[in-house]
Amino acid sequence: MRAIDETPATLPEWQVSTWLNTPDPITVASLRGRVVLVHTFQMLCPGCVTYGLPQAQRVRQAFSASELAVVGLHTVFEHHAVMTVEALRVFVREYRWSFPIGVDEPDGHGGASKTMALYGMRGTPSCLVLDQQGRVCLHHFGQIDDLVLGALLGRLIGR
Amino acid sequence: MRAIDETPATLPEWQVSTWLNTPDPITVASLRGRVVLVHTFQMLCPGCVTYGLPQAQRVRQAFSASELAVVGLHTVFEHHAVMTVEALRVFVREYRWSFPIGVDEPDGHGGASKTMALYGMRGTPSCLVLDQQGRVCLHHFGQIDDLVLGALLGRLIGR
Amino acid sequence: MRAIDETPATLPEWQVSTWLNTPDPITVASLRGRVVLVHTFQMLCPGCVTYGLPQAQRVRQAFSASELAVVGLHTVFEHHAVMTVEALRVFVREYRWSFPIGVDEPDGHGGASKTMALYGMRGTPSCLVLDQQGRVCLHHFGQIDDLVLGALLGRLIGR
Amino acid sequence: MRAIDETPATLPEWQVSTWLNTPDPITVASLRGRVVLVHTFQMLCPGCVTYGLPQAQRVRQAFSASELAVVGLHTVFEHHAVMTVEALRVFVREYRWSFPIGVDEPDGHGGASKTMALYGMRGTPSCLVLDQQGRVCLHHFGQIDDLVLGALLGRLIGR
Repeated sequence: MRAIDETPATLPEWQVSTWLNTPDPITVASLRGRVVLVHTFQMLCPGCVTYGLPQAQRVRQAFSASELAVVGLHTVFEHHAVMTVEALRVFVREYRWSFPIGVDEPDGHGGASKTMALYGMRGTPSCLVLDQQGRVCLHHFGQIDDLVLGALLGRLIGR
Repeated sequence: MRAIDETPATLPEWQVSTWLNTPDPITVASLRGRVVLVHTFQMLCPGCVTYGLPQAQRVRQAFSASELAVVGLHTVFEHHAVMTVEALRVFVREYRWSFPIGVDEPDGHGGASKTMALYGMRGTPSCLVLDQQGRVCLHHFGQIDDLVLGALLGRLIGR
Repeated sequence: MRAIDETPATLPEWQVSTWLNTPDPITVASLRGRVVLVHTFQMLCPGCVTYGLPQAQRVRQAFSASELAVVGLHTVFEHHAVMTVEALRVFVREYRWSFPIGVDEPDGHGGASKTMALYGMRGTPSCLVLDQQGRVCLHHFGQIDDLVLGALLGRLIGR
Repeated sequence: MRAIDETPATLPEWQVSTWLNTPDPITVASLRGRVVLVHTFQMLCPGCVTYGLPQAQRVRQAFSASELAVVGLHTVFEHHAVMTVEALRVFVREYRWSFPIGVDEPDGHGGASKTMALYGMRGTPSCLVLDQQGRVCLHHFGQIDDLVLGALLGRLIGR
């Protein structure tokens, strides 16, 4: 976890091939002016299904869309043959995740997907929090407490 | 739920095309002499992943294998294209389900799989409890309380 | 935990000064013919309030009263001055525990209450399970899994 | 819940007869400069024990003491005879609540304690959030979500 008082880097654009739950593609740039929670997951990752995605959904419900955007990224780094876009669509519909979810572009060689590699992520679930200028204020791998995450989001929204 | 004092029917054989977590296929007949919990699920069914399968795993740990067998059946009735055997293998490995799981034979026309139809199941998760003679003592759709399930299994094991 | 295949001792009578949630005092002898769960607790014991008493309440709801009796015993061994009968009445009403609860007789010297000492209990929460002949089939200190407890109760009810 | 953009009133001083978990009495005035979570409870209120107090303890652990103070107030409005200071001391020690807890002064006539009446509280658990100037930014009766509470606290700390 990075302390938010350091000068954080701006998040580069993700490389997403397909979007779910949104009529139009979403760019990092288009989210300027709002705080952003980016939740990266794999649909067959137990920690993502049990903890990460339900938390992202709770965040979506706890904050107004004008203050905070929640974006999911399906960052596949294993079992590519079965975690397809078609399977993801079923997963998203059955679990009723309501926020936009982008499919990170595969690297084409069975390794980590492109954005996952670009962002230097260690695994899933990982989350990123961006401030209103698109700067990375949190880059966290694994579980994070609701109070701690809520406090960070509130702090960024309020400043 | 059927009262266990009625004369219950014997469960007919399931029709399983592939087995996971067992070196040899398992028949209903081969389980005679033990109480059996049959947990039927779909890998992309939220209720199965959240409640049903963890309960089946807890049952596996709470009882000895000599008294009780736990068998999972992957009974697909929707989204056949993405809940394949290959996807199921990944799901079972990632979630570390440790009991034998059979893949119910598809009907070939996109409907409920063969055993699911044969057993008259209404959806997933469903569970069956068989006594030592293979008779159906419980046929339940949805969640069931740990105490209630434990009591039924204990009652059957002890008589 | 004692294995139920040993020849278990019959539980001697408890020594209860006051009863709550029952019009008449309850004796161990009067429960013959039914399986009995005895839950012993202190009203200011966190483990009792968080795990033990809610489980006793779930057991009360999961089984019929004709097959199984649930009895609570308030076995005070510390802080006697504040865990009085008057305080217990408020606690029982506010938490809506619905099963009969007996107040174990104090020893008069600030130590473990009389029945707690008689039964050789190590602390709270502790539970006892009696079969239909009043024999002790389980004597457990601390938490116990719902499936394991349910199985034992079902096994005894069914034999 | 009051919107934090209204001009909120400053919280008047509480009237506390006894303090636990602090060497010196705490005044509202002495907390200026820090955000404050005031958790009001009764030791025999199930909602307080199950939800409110554990949340106050989690808040204590999630924030630094230099940014945020957590203060409990034992605001008794019923069953005064058994929710005494002596009983509260046992409750606090057994449950290991680590933040300062003040005993709200009884009204002497068996009704709501003095600060509870002064603050216009509807029951327990209730919580108040004060900003660094002692202004009431939240006055909430009942449960509140960790994410929502965390966001408010973070927002106030960060501005």
